[in-house]
Amino acid sequence: MKTNVSYTWKTRKQRSWRRIWEDLEIGYLDRDLLPLLILMNRDEEIFTTSSCSGRITVMDSEFPWDRDETNIIFKSHIPVELNDLNFIFKYSPYKKIWIIVNGPIIHFYSSSTRKASRILNAARRIGFKHSGIIHATKTKGFFVELITGIYLTQLIRTRDNIIISIDNMKDLLTTFNSALIEGKNRLQRLFLELKKILPENVDEEIESDLRAKEISLEKSPIEIFEEMIKSKNNS
Amino acid sequence: MKTNVSYTWKTRKQRSWRRIWEDLEIGYLDRDLLPLLILMNRDEEIFTTSSCSGRITVMDSEFPWDRDETNIIFKSHIPVELNDLNFIFKYSPYKKIWIIVNGPIIHFYSSSTRKASRILNAARRIGFKHSGIIHATKTKGFFVELITGIYLTQLIRTRDNIIISIDNMKDLLTTFNSALIEGKNRLQRLFLELKKILPENVDEEIESDLRAKEISLEKSPIEIFEEMIKSKNNS
Repeated sequence: MKTNVSYTWKTRKQRSWRRIWEDLEIGYLDRDLLPLLILMNRDEEIFTTSSCSGRITVMDSEFPWDRDETNIIFKSHIPVELNDLNFIFKYSPYKKIWIIVNGPIIHFYSSSTRKASRILNAARRIGFKHSGIIHATKTKGFFVELITGIYLTQLIRTRDNIIISIDNMKDLLTTFNSALIEGKNRLQRLFLELKKILPENVDEEIESDLRAKEISLEKSPIEIFEEMIKSKNNS
Repeated sequence: MKTNVSYTWKTRKQRSWRRIWEDLEIGYLDRDLLPLLILMNRDEEIFTTSSCSGRITVMDSEFPWDRDETNIIFKSHIPVELNDLNFIFKYSPYKKIWIIVNGPIIHFYSSSTRKASRILNAARRIGFKHSGIIHATKTKGFFVELITGIYLTQLIRTRDNIIISIDNMKDLLTTFNSALIEGKNRLQRLFLELKKILPENVDEEIESDLRAKEISLEKSPIEIFEEMIKSKNNS
């Protein structure tokens, strides 16, 4: 099958691919995202960029959309317990304390319109309803965002007032954790759905790198998510 | 300038255009959205579909993304006072009570890639950062969503517990109202920005309909928003 993959594009893909493994090594990558990233990058016409498997964060900022990583004072890709968040009530906020949960967000470039559309349609069908093409450029191809509607925020305290007392946090966390898990289930569905159509044009460089790394392709996102929870409970 | 506007597309545009005025008549349209809708539809290669100028809603649902209009038990396109929401604490919820504020969301079809991209880029530059092409079809052209990151939710009560007491609602509403106003300011910026580039290919049918309706094109979104607040305070 004829592909339309330029030299620059290939260089960008190599850089993004290396980045995944550097992030993994320094513990910066959500491990439950890895099966999907590998699956997508195994196709020659796709490379992924900064993505998220779904997480709960605490921010100290005027609003949650003031998205500067320095505002994030806590983050977790697995369910959160009250113990994890006690510090919020001992700490004097700089602006406002928010808890946020977001579902999975996947970003990728594709050099093929047809492939970008096919993935978009598959994703939309299984609950990534807010997905779209963010950008189209000559050198990088189509930049696509796959995103669900799963997103909650909660104002916990301002500088002067506690809006949610520690007694009410338990109920709140039950709701936030179940939203997180709903996101992880959709990530799993996306993985299973894209596995039916990818990789289409196998990227031989990625394949040989995976063999060199001796990476198992057996585990699914939800299995790794369950491992992550277990390893927290055992530590 | 050559345009690429088919018969079907034109019929769809006429239907959407009529719908705006029907919605306005039954009080279903956010009036402060009208200047932008008119501006965009005056271009032959664009028609708008369901959009929102930004609003505060109260939902009774498991999660805020269970987007069924029957779950919405209150909505307002202008700032909300505590009085407006007292009913929440007298009412026994079916599922959970959420307050949600969202910034403006504009949906439109364009028969021209170039125009869709130009509008997308302008919108992204002035704070509609999550905008993208949602869909591309042969008959309807490009379906575009212009959207900001302005979105907050707050869990107020479950069936068994009150998470936010009425005493804490005042602080919460201050924050939610200022998010609403931030959204209205971005809508105004979008209007002023698109006014520089639209209408490009004037749609004569829309122009003659506007003359027949004797619609003033003078007012901007924020002026109408201010009128809406005044008329509430006087009523």
